[in-house]
Amino acid sequence: MPDDQPRPTGLLDRLQALLGPSGLLSAPEDLAPHLTDWRGLYRGRAPFLLRPANATELSEAVRLCAGAGAALVPQGGNTSMVGGAVPDESGLQVPVSLARLNRMRDVDPVDMTMTVEAGVVVKAAQDAAAAAGCLFPLSFGGEGSATVGGVLSTNAGGNTTVRYGNARELVLGLEVVLPDGRVWNGLRRLRKDNTGYALRHLFVGAEGTLGFITAAVLRLFPRARESEVAFCAVASEEAALSLFRRFRDRDETAVRAFEYMSGAGVDLVARHVAGAALPVETRAGHYALVDLASSRPDAGLRGMMEAVLEEALEAEEVLDAAIGGSEAQRAALWRIREEHPEAQRLAGASVKNDVSVPVSKTPELMRRCSEALRALVPGSVPVPFGHLGDGNIHMNLLQPEDTDPAAFLARSHEIMDAVNAVVRDLGGSPSAEHGIGRLKAGILEEWRGGPELDLMHRIKAAIDPAGLMNPGKLFPP
Amino acid sequence: MPDDQPRPTGLLDRLQALLGPSGLLSAPEDLAPHLTDWRGLYRGRAPFLLRPANATELSEAVRLCAGAGAALVPQGGNTSMVGGAVPDESGLQVPVSLARLNRMRDVDPVDMTMTVEAGVVVKAAQDAAAAAGCLFPLSFGGEGSATVGGVLSTNAGGNTTVRYGNARELVLGLEVVLPDGRVWNGLRRLRKDNTGYALRHLFVGAEGTLGFITAAVLRLFPRARESEVAFCAVASEEAALSLFRRFRDRDETAVRAFEYMSGAGVDLVARHVAGAALPVETRAGHYALVDLASSRPDAGLRGMMEAVLEEALEAEEVLDAAIGGSEAQRAALWRIREEHPEAQRLAGASVKNDVSVPVSKTPELMRRCSEALRALVPGSVPVPFGHLGDGNIHMNLLQPEDTDPAAFLARSHEIMDAVNAVVRDLGGSPSAEHGIGRLKAGILEEWRGGPELDLMHRIKAAIDPAGLMNPGKLFPP
Repeated sequence: MPDDQPRPTGLLDRLQALLGPSGLLSAPEDLAPHLTDWRGLYRGRAPFLLRPANATELSEAVRLCAGAGAALVPQGGNTSMVGGAVPDESGLQVPVSLARLNRMRDVDPVDMTMTVEAGVVVKAAQDAAAAAGCLFPLSFGGEGSATVGGVLSTNAGGNTTVRYGNARELVLGLEVVLPDGRVWNGLRRLRKDNTGYALRHLFVGAEGTLGFITAAVLRLFPRARESEVAFCAVASEEAALSLFRRFRDRDETAVRAFEYMSGAGVDLVARHVAGAALPVETRAGHYALVDLASSRPDAGLRGMMEAVLEEALEAEEVLDAAIGGSEAQRAALWRIREEHPEAQRLAGASVKNDVSVPVSKTPELMRRCSEALRALVPGSVPVPFGHLGDGNIHMNLLQPEDTDPAAFLARSHEIMDAVNAVVRDLGGSPSAEHGIGRLKAGILEEWRGGPELDLMHRIKAAIDPAGLMNPGKLFPP
Repeated sequence: MPDDQPRPTGLLDRLQALLGPSGLLSAPEDLAPHLTDWRGLYRGRAPFLLRPANATELSEAVRLCAGAGAALVPQGGNTSMVGGAVPDESGLQVPVSLARLNRMRDVDPVDMTMTVEAGVVVKAAQDAAAAAGCLFPLSFGGEGSATVGGVLSTNAGGNTTVRYGNARELVLGLEVVLPDGRVWNGLRRLRKDNTGYALRHLFVGAEGTLGFITAAVLRLFPRARESEVAFCAVASEEAALSLFRRFRDRDETAVRAFEYMSGAGVDLVARHVAGAALPVETRAGHYALVDLASSRPDAGLRGMMEAVLEEALEAEEVLDAAIGGSEAQRAALWRIREEHPEAQRLAGASVKNDVSVPVSKTPELMRRCSEALRALVPGSVPVPFGHLGDGNIHMNLLQPEDTDPAAFLARSHEIMDAVNAVVRDLGGSPSAEHGIGRLKAGILEEWRGGPELDLMHRIKAAIDPAGLMNPGKLFPP
């Protein structure tokens, strides 16, 4: 155990003695990366890390820990945006890595399902589906590190929610190790099954507070045979929404992603990221990225793209557009959107707001938040971007150029409150796709208090009566 | 109170005195239709019917009933296939009709949502969406009587699940009156919202055992601008599956429905239903109905239909096919499928089995069940039909011609057991879209026993600790 770790209590000593011979414990030197979230918001402590290789080992370890009253913290790729997967500072919480549960159990192109273990990286799941001629559509920035168990536990969203739904909609069945160590095998691959409560939907998005997701049956789709990407300079936030509506009305099934970027955000990417130049001649205050795809070999997406852009150009909603003519060009257009977080990081300190509103309210959300934030922090730069097609905007704020980053970040809560006031007024959510974790646990009472939070508490108490699963996350302290 | 009803207990007398002045109580002569399910499986008793006009009235009535310890039975259109919406024979359960909560609160073609109250009939919801230029896609035989609250509480499926999912997938937000009378307003219209447990998914499909769904925000889709329907004679169960795969692979988003019918079933329709003639020249052992639709004005579905059928004819999977050339012709082709229940009713007594398996197993399911049923009841006629595209087959059995219907129906449980043995072997579900209700409560222990049923019991106890919501339904007696 590293010197900077507290001595475990007698209880944890006993656990360590019991578990030591099992081979489930990490070497002390391997512990450190599991104690800090990648954003660097939290730095926890722990006596050891559990690394089970399968659900049976996990089940036995959980039974021992439950008997000893030890709190457990599930961890997948440790890519949480809200500190959801690291232990607290007490040294009494035991992190459990699911990384060794990494088998692809089955890919079935007739049922259009795959059965994968929790530790499989999302990108690996995408690749396994593709190798069988299918598509696993979940896609987002962290897909190269995030694991299936993590994205299900947090109900990840990403770029393709507008077409395929969130992680939740992709799940047909689950295997779960419950807080008392029992294993629930619900790995069914059925599109219709009305036999009691939909338990899988309770574990999906529960952020590890109800048990460990150890495997899942996921839905697959036919692979795309055509795809088209356009990067558009648009006249306003309203014009971006109108452009989305034009595509959706024409063929909602073809819109794989529809992303908004502000002029400020695109400028930051062009300035800070090597090789990411503006692909259109017109420098604008607003941009949209449209990604169309279809499994039809004769979908005619290029024609559809050009026809809709032509309409929108005539309506003066679109000012200029570049259509990617090759896979490399399409990737280059996407890169401008994907480098937004990195460009913001290189430009200084940022406060991130992962919020959503009804799609119709996205223009008002961005306008009102930007105004409020500029007034709150003079000289700061609002950089809204994200998934306009599903109403999820990352309403981020970049520090003023001449300010101390720490002084700016010290105002994080004021900034989040200013955004959330607008979000609340528009019937939105203060956490669209990142979840609550530890970072936002403080706001749940305000947003979901009353009967809703009471129901959550009752369910938590019913399934994890000792409160050992991921304490300090999701629920208000 | 009608003479054949038992006298209420003192408790119910008191309730009646409290509620009488509220105008919520039905006249005694209006009670009868609410006591019997439409299949005629059960005949309950009750002291009175509650008919609240809105969630506030329901909330107050539930609070009174909870205080008095009166059990409540939610009822929508009373179209349950499994006796899920009628009170038992004790005379102590109070049926609650949601029919007066029938306002369409809002239809929004930008957000692509509508907010409707529980008592709105599904067909009326479809019509309201259509009037706004949108599609509410849930569609099934009982849509002219079933209500939104009922189809959400039972997570109805139907013909379009293959394309749009079950009722569950169409719900963004809910308003619920809880068993203690509190109202949870979760009427959010967000595609992304990760703020705690997904409570809406707990109430959807709970069959009224956790509370009353009083309103919902439902997803809408662009209306179809092209549609095509074909009725095909196919070579075998396997050929039907193969035909489905050809269409799905070409464009899974265009397949609005894919239905299987046996030769026996189509013969029954032709024999018993006036004006429902076989639309193809070839009389076959198996048929499939394909329904394609797209919002694209230039989808070219006729060309796609012809191209895929041509391939399948060459592969000798399809033996003959008729494509509907007009709206009337398409309706006529659908009618052969839709009249299956009525034709079976006219032909004699039937035992119904609403089962599902992974899509790849549908041919094996139908073959094995048919063999087992013919062996079990010599002379009986297996009539499998239904939603092959989502794995849900109605594996029905018609009585032998020369048998007493009552003697045949007396063997219902044997027949269901024979079907369920195959379903279990194939990893399926004994209730695909009809739910458990009272009819199937006895099988839940066998199918979902162990940790899964234990979790359901814990959730039930956490949310409805007094057990007043729809007792005798869903859970094993």
